[in-house]
Amino acid sequence: LHEVLDATAAWYRQGVPFALVHVVRVFGSAPRLPGVAMAVAASGEVVGSVSGGCIEGAVYEECLQVLENQQSVSRTYGVTDDDAFAVGLTCGGDIDVFIEPVDHERHPRFLDVVTAVQDGEPVAVATVVRGDSIGAHAIVTAAAATGESALVDVARSMLRRGTTGLAGGDDVFVETFTAPARLIVFGATDFARALVSAAKLLGYHVTVCDARPVFATRTRFPDADEVVVDQPYRYMEGTKVDSRTVLCVLTHDPKFDVPLLQVALRSPVGYVGALGSRRTHDDRLARLREAGLSDDEIARLRSPIGLDLGASTPEETAISILAEVIAAGRDASGQPLANTSGPIHS
Amino acid sequence: LHEVLDATAAWYRQGVPFALVHVVRVFGSAPRLPGVAMAVAASGEVVGSVSGGCIEGAVYEECLQVLENQQSVSRTYGVTDDDAFAVGLTCGGDIDVFIEPVDHERHPRFLDVVTAVQDGEPVAVATVVRGDSIGAHAIVTAAAATGESALVDVARSMLRRGTTGLAGGDDVFVETFTAPARLIVFGATDFARALVSAAKLLGYHVTVCDARPVFATRTRFPDADEVVVDQPYRYMEGTKVDSRTVLCVLTHDPKFDVPLLQVALRSPVGYVGALGSRRTHDDRLARLREAGLSDDEIARLRSPIGLDLGASTPEETAISILAEVIAAGRDASGQPLANTSGPIHS
Repeated sequence: LHEVLDATAAWYRQGVPFALVHVVRVFGSAPRLPGVAMAVAASGEVVGSVSGGCIEGAVYEECLQVLENQQSVSRTYGVTDDDAFAVGLTCGGDIDVFIEPVDHERHPRFLDVVTAVQDGEPVAVATVVRGDSIGAHAIVTAAAATGESALVDVARSMLRRGTTGLAGGDDVFVETFTAPARLIVFGATDFARALVSAAKLLGYHVTVCDARPVFATRTRFPDADEVVVDQPYRYMEGTKVDSRTVLCVLTHDPKFDVPLLQVALRSPVGYVGALGSRRTHDDRLARLREAGLSDDEIARLRSPIGLDLGASTPEETAISILAEVIAAGRDASGQPLANTSGPIHS
Repeated sequence: LHEVLDATAAWYRQGVPFALVHVVRVFGSAPRLPGVAMAVAASGEVVGSVSGGCIEGAVYEECLQVLENQQSVSRTYGVTDDDAFAVGLTCGGDIDVFIEPVDHERHPRFLDVVTAVQDGEPVAVATVVRGDSIGAHAIVTAAAATGESALVDVARSMLRRGTTGLAGGDDVFVETFTAPARLIVFGATDFARALVSAAKLLGYHVTVCDARPVFATRTRFPDADEVVVDQPYRYMEGTKVDSRTVLCVLTHDPKFDVPLLQVALRSPVGYVGALGSRRTHDDRLARLREAGLSDDEIARLRSPIGLDLGASTPEETAISILAEVIAAGRDASGQPLANTSGPIHS
C-alpha cells in the first residue's frame, strides 16, 4: 500500500502522469482487501499488483489505455474456479477495479492524501467510479475536507467507521487510511505475553507498559510494537489515544491499577478492561469510588476482563479478552451464533 | 520436558541413579507450569531447570543431598518481589518442588512412562509427595495401570481431564502427559489461515485439509503442523481423533461439507463447527437430514460456527471460533465476566 503511495507521490512531484488502480470490490474469498493496489507511470514503470497473478497483464494494458485516453474506467475481471489459483484468488470469483489517470490538474490534492497517510493521520478519499462525475474526488481528514459536499459526507461517515468500500449506491468508492488501532497492555506478565501475540494477529499496534524495568523488556515481548518502562498512570496521561484504543490492565496490583484507572476511565478510549478475581474486582471498585470516580466512569470498566469462556491458561485468557473487545465494539451478544438469529457479520 | 525425560531415560538404561525434580505448585504469576522440570545424575550432570534463575543452585544442592540420603523431599522456595526477576518468577511468590531419587528398584516402571510420552500415548504418573508412603507411584495409560488402587484412581481421574497438579489433599502429585489436542481445519481458505495462526497460539496440533492441491499447500499455511490434500470426508474416515479433537469446517461448499459432516457428527470428536451464512446453514441442515443423520447427531453441529462477536475479518472470525471452542469445553456462558457471578476459571 505505502509502496504504491510512495512511488506515485514521487511521480506526482516530478510531474509524471500515472494511472492509479483501486481494487473496489472482490467477489468470492479473495486474497486481498479493497484499496489502492497498483500504478503505472506514463513511462511504463509499474508499482504494486492487483492479484499477484495473470490479471496483472490485462490491468497493465488497461492502464496504458487510460493514460492515452485520459479517461477513468471501471472494469470487472472474472476468474473461473480453474483459473483461480493462477491469478491468486482462493475461490475464483470476480474482482472489480477502478483505474484513473492522475496528474496535478485532475487530482490537485493527491499529495494531501499521501502526507496524511505518511504522518499516520486518518484520511478518507471518496472517488466517483461510475456516472457523469466519474473521477471526482473528496478528501476528508479530522481537520479539513475538500470536494463536493455530498461526496464529503460519504467520505466522512466511512472515515468515522474506519472502513473502505463502495458507497452511495456503488457509485462512490471510499478508501480510508487509518493507523492501526492501539492496544495497550499494562503489566508485563505472562498473561500479557499471550495477549500481545493474539492482539498482533488482529492487527493492533501493541504497547506493553510496566513500571518495572526488569519485566518490561523487548526480550520478554518480542511481538510487541513498543515496550515502555513507566508508571502506568503517567504513561496513560502522556500517550495519544482515541476511541479505537483498547486498554487491558493486567497489573493485578491496586498500587498500579487504581491510579491508572483514574486516568483511563476519564480518557476517550473505546475499551478499558482489568484482570482480577471477583474479590480483587470488589476491592478495586471500592478504591475507585473512594478516589472520586463517578458511577458513569466506573461503569465503563470491564472487570473482571473478558468473556466467560472458562479460560484458564494465559492463551485462553487472551482469547477471552479479545473476544470481549470485538463484541464490545459491535454490541454483539457473545452467545453461540447457533443460538442467535441476528446478522453474523457486523 | 522431553529434554529431561530423554536424558533421564538414558541414565536409567545405563544404571545411573538420578534425582528427579518436579515443580508441583507455583504461587504468584509464575513463568512455568507444574511438571518434571530438572534432573541431576549421581555423576553431577544436570538437565533442565526449575526457574531459569538462581533457585537452580539451591535445587541442585538439594538433589545431591537426595541422592546421598536416598530419601524424597518436598521443598518450598520463597521468592521476594525484589528477587523475583532474578529467579525468573514474574511476580514473586513461592515455588513448591518435589525431589525423588530414581533408580530401577525405586521406580521399576519409569521407562513405561517415557515410552508412552515418546509414542504420544496419554499417560499419568501419580507420586506421593508427603506422608508415610512418600515416593510411591502409580502409572496409568488407556490400556494399563500399575500401583496402589487409590493412587491409580487419582491418576486415572486426572488423566481423563488431561490435567497436572496436586490431588488427594495435596499429598499426591499427578503429572499427565498428553499429546496436544488436534484442531483440523477443512477448507484451505483465508479464514483457515487466520484460524491456524490463532489455534497454534492455544497449543493445538493443527491440520489443514482440502481436496484441491493448489490451495492446500505448506506455503499458504506455514503455521500448520500438517497440510493434507484429500477429500475431507475420506481424510476424516481415516485419521485418528479423540474427545479433545476440534473440527472446523470452513469449506463453504455442500459438495465437500455434507459428506464430511456425515462422518464427523458420528465420530467421537469434542467439537464440530461449520462456517456459513444462515441460509447456508438451513440448506446444510436439510441436506444432513436427507442424508439420514439423526436429530441428536445434527444437534452436535455448531453452525454457524463461533460466538456472536460481530466478527467480520478472518482474524476476528478466528477469535470467535476459538472462543466458542474454549467455552464449549467448559460449558461457559460467553457473557462478559462483568455480568456473571460464577467462577472465572474453569
